[in-house]
Amino acid sequence: SLWPLMSLTLHLNTCLVFLILVGLSEKVLVFPYETDFSFVALIPQKEMELRAFTLCMRVATELPEERQIILFAYRTADYDELNVWREKDGRVSLSMSGDGIFFHLPPLTTFRSSLCLTWESRTGLTAFWVDGKRSTYQVYKPGHSIRPKGTVLLGQDPDKHLGGLEAMQSFVGEVTDLNMWDSVLSRSMIQAWHYGHKVLKGNIFDWSSIEYELNGNVMVVHDD
Amino acid sequence: SLWPLMSLTLHLNTCLVFLILVGLSEKVLVFPYETDFSFVALIPQKEMELRAFTLCMRVATELPEERQIILFAYRTADYDELNVWREKDGRVSLSMSGDGIFFHLPPLTTFRSSLCLTWESRTGLTAFWVDGKRSTYQVYKPGHSIRPKGTVLLGQDPDKHLGGLEAMQSFVGEVTDLNMWDSVLSRSMIQAWHYGHKVLKGNIFDWSSIEYELNGNVMVVHDD
Amino acid sequence: SLWPLMSLTLHLNTCLVFLILVGLSEKVLVFPYETDFSFVALIPQKEMELRAFTLCMRVATELPEERQIILFAYRTADYDELNVWREKDGRVSLSMSGDGIFFHLPPLTTFRSSLCLTWESRTGLTAFWVDGKRSTYQVYKPGHSIRPKGTVLLGQDPDKHLGGLEAMQSFVGEVTDLNMWDSVLSRSMIQAWHYGHKVLKGNIFDWSSIEYELNGNVMVVHDD
Repeated sequence: SLWPLMSLTLHLNTCLVFLILVGLSEKVLVFPYETDFSFVALIPQKEMELRAFTLCMRVATELPEERQIILFAYRTADYDELNVWREKDGRVSLSMSGDGIFFHLPPLTTFRSSLCLTWESRTGLTAFWVDGKRSTYQVYKPGHSIRPKGTVLLGQDPDKHLGGLEAMQSFVGEVTDLNMWDSVLSRSMIQAWHYGHKVLKGNIFDWSSIEYELNGNVMVVHDD
Repeated sequence: SLWPLMSLTLHLNTCLVFLILVGLSEKVLVFPYETDFSFVALIPQKEMELRAFTLCMRVATELPEERQIILFAYRTADYDELNVWREKDGRVSLSMSGDGIFFHLPPLTTFRSSLCLTWESRTGLTAFWVDGKRSTYQVYKPGHSIRPKGTVLLGQDPDKHLGGLEAMQSFVGEVTDLNMWDSVLSRSMIQAWHYGHKVLKGNIFDWSSIEYELNGNVMVVHDD
Repeated sequence: SLWPLMSLTLHLNTCLVFLILVGLSEKVLVFPYETDFSFVALIPQKEMELRAFTLCMRVATELPEERQIILFAYRTADYDELNVWREKDGRVSLSMSGDGIFFHLPPLTTFRSSLCLTWESRTGLTAFWVDGKRSTYQVYKPGHSIRPKGTVLLGQDPDKHLGGLEAMQSFVGEVTDLNMWDSVLSRSMIQAWHYGHKVLKGNIFDWSSIEYELNGNVMVVHDD
């Protein structure tokens, strides 16, 4: 019967429909062009009221070194709660509701890098992990909490809640295997994730069962 | 008797003779100088009417980074059907009948790089593979077809069908183990080729049984 | 009872108390900010009247390449007895009571480098060892002796005995696994230390039982 399809078409003409999809196991998200409208919203498994986290993803990009790139954006109504950027000067930054901290990491390239980020509120200790190797610790916002009830986007940086997107900050390239935990993983667990041991599943985001919404020009490609 | 040799000499004085040679197993093509007349024409095993392909070769060059280099040229009467260039800015490009796309790859060096290129018309997904590692996908000419009945050259870029060669674009260095398929190979097959598992033979070009014509100053050297 | 704590508080208000701590096994010292007051004093197991030594540590820093960084400072009343610097031009230097010698080593990065330094008075042969690989030998101060009864600092360079600190020379980053011997270790022993074979313990400093005093903003973090 054609009824289900027609019903869906009606919806699309009358309101903004987000089709929530589930699970990206062995899939890679390809953002092929610079746009101000392509992004993927990720729906967390639990509220993101966080006093510690580990965020991991594999990422590759052809974008030139001097261009700013949003790698991960979690925003509530009034705050950029947790943004990860590749900055214009090549450094990678974390910012949570204000000024960020900057790390000198090996450059992102056309080949996939595995990138993790750990932070805990108690000490403020913050580190990036590239291909399983930890950067130097920096101390960032000890005592801070990340607020819940926001929106996580890949591909764009919302300057307000779900709006204000800029092409010149958009992500172009590939993201896969994003996982997030509400605690700081140990070195051995981060290295296990890096080497692809699939037993580790994030309790905020787990790539294999992740709920997501595709917007604009984003391709879901079998990760061969 | 000297008659056969004399007869051949007569031929060479009176018309353009192409001596078709077969098979380059364990051989490397050495292009020792910058010329506008040295090239190798490759004769495909089947017509190159392609909606997908994998092209692999091993290549080494001493040419300076800022010089343009033709790496592979397939041309029909009116179109550059499939050209692979190392560009002046160091990027590697694919162009098919028009503007190309550009990839930031590790530089070609005096040491051999294994280079593959995959494209499929259905999605437009295009990637280079360097030493078995895939670059970021780019989307290029979805829906396009490569036209048959052209000519494949190594060493020169013909600006018209079999003519218009330029020394400043010529290839200087070594090429070996070129294979081409009319489909997109999987990661594991590309890595198998990279590691020299000889079981994989291209169905358009297979280095071990390839038909080719040498022109100008090109040496066929045992690949020790 | 609250008495012991109150007694300690009184002390802290009336004089400078150094709390000597012991042992940093599986710990890393994190110097999170540029300061002129954060340092760690190390108390040697034996007097540092030295005619040979091996000094090893693991070190990581985010500081920019062009900034001078003190890596190790041993000072007696009138002399900088043994200073190790990362210089403004990126070279690493050793100086003992006067002009130093300079080595071109791989840059210090956000990832940990293992760094050893060997010197013997008899020949003057001096070398750095990075990740178990020896630099070219240089000859430095044959016949010289290092004087005892000084103070070893990490994090700051004292321009006079326990004073004259400058933020622009301070260390920011991580130090761990510092060991020091009063002899020149063999290549195999240095490599054993590099690969973390814990059987090798310095007889001047042994990280697992080292006595140290924390000053200012230095964190002792479990080295995960």
